[in-house]
Amino acid sequence: MGLLEETLDSIRGKDEEAVKKAWSAIDNLTKPIGSLGKLEEIIAKMAGITGKTHNKINKKNIVIMCADNGMWDEKLNNCPKELTVTVTKNFVKGITGVCVLGDFFKSDRTVVDIGVDYDFNDPEILNRKVAYGTKDITKGPAMTREECVKAVETGIEVVDDLVKKGYDLFGTGEMGVCNTATSAAVLSGLRKLPADVTVGKGSGITDSQLYYKKKAVQQAIDINKPNSEDPIDVLSKVGGFDIAGICGCFLGAARNNVPIVIDGFISAVAALCAFRLNNKVVDYLFASHLSAEPAIKYIMAELGLTPMVNLNMRLGEGSGCPIAFGIIEAALYVMDNMGTFSDANIDSANFVDIREK
Amino acid sequence: MGLLEETLDSIRGKDEEAVKKAWSAIDNLTKPIGSLGKLEEIIAKMAGITGKTHNKINKKNIVIMCADNGMWDEKLNNCPKELTVTVTKNFVKGITGVCVLGDFFKSDRTVVDIGVDYDFNDPEILNRKVAYGTKDITKGPAMTREECVKAVETGIEVVDDLVKKGYDLFGTGEMGVCNTATSAAVLSGLRKLPADVTVGKGSGITDSQLYYKKKAVQQAIDINKPNSEDPIDVLSKVGGFDIAGICGCFLGAARNNVPIVIDGFISAVAALCAFRLNNKVVDYLFASHLSAEPAIKYIMAELGLTPMVNLNMRLGEGSGCPIAFGIIEAALYVMDNMGTFSDANIDSANFVDIREK
Repeated sequence: MGLLEETLDSIRGKDEEAVKKAWSAIDNLTKPIGSLGKLEEIIAKMAGITGKTHNKINKKNIVIMCADNGMWDEKLNNCPKELTVTVTKNFVKGITGVCVLGDFFKSDRTVVDIGVDYDFNDPEILNRKVAYGTKDITKGPAMTREECVKAVETGIEVVDDLVKKGYDLFGTGEMGVCNTATSAAVLSGLRKLPADVTVGKGSGITDSQLYYKKKAVQQAIDINKPNSEDPIDVLSKVGGFDIAGICGCFLGAARNNVPIVIDGFISAVAALCAFRLNNKVVDYLFASHLSAEPAIKYIMAELGLTPMVNLNMRLGEGSGCPIAFGIIEAALYVMDNMGTFSDANIDSANFVDIREK
Repeated sequence: MGLLEETLDSIRGKDEEAVKKAWSAIDNLTKPIGSLGKLEEIIAKMAGITGKTHNKINKKNIVIMCADNGMWDEKLNNCPKELTVTVTKNFVKGITGVCVLGDFFKSDRTVVDIGVDYDFNDPEILNRKVAYGTKDITKGPAMTREECVKAVETGIEVVDDLVKKGYDLFGTGEMGVCNTATSAAVLSGLRKLPADVTVGKGSGITDSQLYYKKKAVQQAIDINKPNSEDPIDVLSKVGGFDIAGICGCFLGAARNNVPIVIDGFISAVAALCAFRLNNKVVDYLFASHLSAEPAIKYIMAELGLTPMVNLNMRLGEGSGCPIAFGIIEAALYVMDNMGTFSDANIDSANFVDIREK
């Protein structure tokens, strides 16, 4: 049995008993029942992940999967293809959005070359290259099925290693010119949606470029005919190494019983792939922000998740994760430090439970 | 000229030149133009408040206005009237939601007795009592116009004093049994809306209590006939000392050119009063979270603000403010630490500006 199958087999899902215990502890805190809204849900979800009512995050890490996409075409893009290389180097310099927000919220990051068309030779960039970029999905499959499994397993291994180093909260980021297009193609493949609804403006393109982007994604679907029931088939035909690698990160976190945060559209598409491979993955997922890419709503609806913040961000890189880290840690701090009804001299019967069940 | 008039006269509004400079600095950071969404808007708004492109928060304070409301009636409430006293004491103990979240995000707090029906004799509770609670608004005005002005001026003075102590970011909180009802009444008064749309379930009541709450608020409006063009008239007839005090905090922050954060429904109603007194107040306001009270949408629409987070919270106390503090400080950190296009070896012409103007 390969690492992917072994991982899918070993995902336990939430500890229902721990979730129940957490809710009774939460409902004993001195506040109207349910009045801390999603903060309470975060506390309970975390209990389901770790099996404990009280949780504290020790070390956070955002894994940034970097890869090139063969579908680059000047009609679709303002960015030169080389931007993938430049931004990957900038992650190491610490000057991009995810770096700065990660620093503010005290998160480390792991920069992974999972398929950039360039040799970095930089010890701070993890060389886990599956290939020098994918092939052009508008002409045929992005990669072989074997390469796809290898990319997913890379994500699993990266998270496995970081868990061994004590990281217990993960974020997911990426860099790869064209990866909102490949993500849209994967979403189209998984949910049988036309490119017209899955393609958005990504990092910023004109209306005429949007027309070509939609056409290219639809062509990729029409030519490759991905099997919507087989996420590996979809990923390998119309995805990218970055999306496959992030999908592996979600699976790796789930099998290690560690929470992991979805960033924006690309990361959410990868989460949907992981969820399709094993539905229990959703028990380990937190959605950070509502990306400005409109198609993210289809993914959140299927996952049954609601992003914590709506900041109209569309940078990618994993830049929404640090903000979610702050909110998750705040929620856990509430569980540890807020008084109970008895500490507060208040009768819990003062409050009616008006939560929707 | 009294303090209120003097304050209203002295509110300068945003520094347009500084906002323009900030936007050009933001658009020079290495990212697709506009891709950090509301984080960028926070940076620019802060520049308008302080006049500087780069800003750093030194000390944060959540001012919690505590007061009793004469409209308490067991048909409307599960909570005993005494809960105002108990929770006010619990703020000092540091065990309530706003305390714990404030501690996590490193904010101080100021507990103000602006009208509790009790003598605390506690040096940690600022005694700025205007009266021992308001009168029952279902039977007549809550307070005199003079008392209302005094309560608003109390808020101004409290913020003035804290600004002198070096606080440069404020939050607004409250405690007062029945204050979602009085807030709904003020909103009804200001916007000529029926109680049926302004009244929600507050901290948690049954459907039958909701019916009585709506009836009571409508009765308060019908009996008092507040003048929608005169916020002080509305506040004094159907408001409370807590709402009036918070309204003063907003005015005080604005006249000191210091940012201030709206919490939930009650705080938002107070912000609307401040805005109606002087529209320029909105230049100093940040909306933290979208309260679960449905009528908050009318307020956000008039203020033209969008809350940063949607956590379905309905605790009040100021508990949404600390999370907003974290996001505001993260945004300012981005402005200070993110690389520019030239640092990043990237041509800004790679990105198309797709922001809605």
